[in-house]
Amino acid sequence: MYKYKLILSYDGTNYSGWQIQPNAPSIQEKLEKTFEILLKQPLRVIGAGRTDAGVHALNQTAHFTHSERLDERQVLFSLNGLLPSDIRVKSIELASDDFHAQYSAISKIYRYHLWTERIIDPFHHLYRYHFYFPYSKEQLEQAAKKFIGTKDFAAFANVGGSVKTSVRNLKRIDIFEEIGGICLEFEGNGFLYKMVRNIVGHMLDVSRKKRDLEEIEEIFKKKDRRYAAMAAPAKGLFLAKVIY
Amino acid sequence: MYKYKLILSYDGTNYSGWQIQPNAPSIQEKLEKTFEILLKQPLRVIGAGRTDAGVHALNQTAHFTHSERLDERQVLFSLNGLLPSDIRVKSIELASDDFHAQYSAISKIYRYHLWTERIIDPFHHLYRYHFYFPYSKEQLEQAAKKFIGTKDFAAFANVGGSVKTSVRNLKRIDIFEEIGGICLEFEGNGFLYKMVRNIVGHMLDVSRKKRDLEEIEEIFKKKDRRYAAMAAPAKGLFLAKVIY
Repeated sequence: MYKYKLILSYDGTNYSGWQIQPNAPSIQEKLEKTFEILLKQPLRVIGAGRTDAGVHALNQTAHFTHSERLDERQVLFSLNGLLPSDIRVKSIELASDDFHAQYSAISKIYRYHLWTERIIDPFHHLYRYHFYFPYSKEQLEQAAKKFIGTKDFAAFANVGGSVKTSVRNLKRIDIFEEIGGICLEFEGNGFLYKMVRNIVGHMLDVSRKKRDLEEIEEIFKKKDRRYAAMAAPAKGLFLAKVIY
Repeated sequence: MYKYKLILSYDGTNYSGWQIQPNAPSIQEKLEKTFEILLKQPLRVIGAGRTDAGVHALNQTAHFTHSERLDERQVLFSLNGLLPSDIRVKSIELASDDFHAQYSAISKIYRYHLWTERIIDPFHHLYRYHFYFPYSKEQLEQAAKKFIGTKDFAAFANVGGSVKTSVRNLKRIDIFEEIGGICLEFEGNGFLYKMVRNIVGHMLDVSRKKRDLEEIEEIFKKKDRRYAAMAAPAKGLFLAKVIY
């Protein structure tokens, strides 16, 4: 058996997320069906992690095993010829036998893109959250610091994942300016279900002084999702990179 | 009566074009309905020109007349609050009585965006035509020259417009490189129905040597749409600017 590593990019707008589920279009399903057409046999594609409905990916990583040695270049072009244009496979390469897209990952980088100017450019409307409230960048930066470190993120995770522990190491949240707004970049060893969007939602509430900065520590202690802010919308979120 | 000039930007993906038509969503209809909600009376919005189904606009220009002096800033924000996020009004200003969005226009600039690399970035899939054939940039530039000038563009126009003459002055076609591909920028005193897309389609056929460069002059003489190449897809086309 040969193991292959895939790097792919997708516009999540029209999908119910990465993971296969009944009666809803998923990225994983599109990929597996395309492989089935191409390789004439069913195939399981394992992703580094799920992305939720409407979340995008710049470099989602996945793996699959196959009995034959494939011509990677040819498979790459054939796959992209058959896939819808909102899903693109950027590379395919042979991986070592012990590579696993999910378990071998050391960390993941997510980016959350906000349009903060009053009038959003309509060509970004699918890829940015239009956050048009007055806000304090200093408060946003202060809020970011409260989330960094190895913590139990139970209060900032939705029920729905199948994880043993809700402790994660959030290595950094970098805030940088970009055309029309700002981007929040998260790097961590793992993320719970809706964790990035819940943290972004909470940080934004603090930045517009709807919530108090000091309250964050108390919410961490409560470990109860109901005390944290609403999740930021899916369309601003991108899985940027998986580090192995 | 007061006359107002609007500049607007839209992602044409989900619209059947600028112009109101029965049983299909149009930009003009969305705008007029929004104005009706806001100003509590029906209103006609006249555009500089139609854009076809799926064609985008960076700076479409339009006008309307209204009996009252409006607070432009307030109308601008209210309009954008009510409009879907794929249509944004960028500015509203008072115009002189004799201003007419269509008849006062001196020229229009259209841009056609091509993704020429082998794998398209999925975040451009709605806004670029993926032209992945080997092509000659020199042939493309030679083809462009054949279209420039004051000519009868009947062979490069689809039936459907309500125009008296098919003579137009195409001032320039500039070709410039951009991330992932190239952009063809057209400036002319007016464009016939599907004229830009028909010219782009023909230029691309010449660039990949599917058609002969010298044939263009003969096609101009024939004045028959059937001799020219297929139109390039709508999604790559942007109305960039209307010059008054």
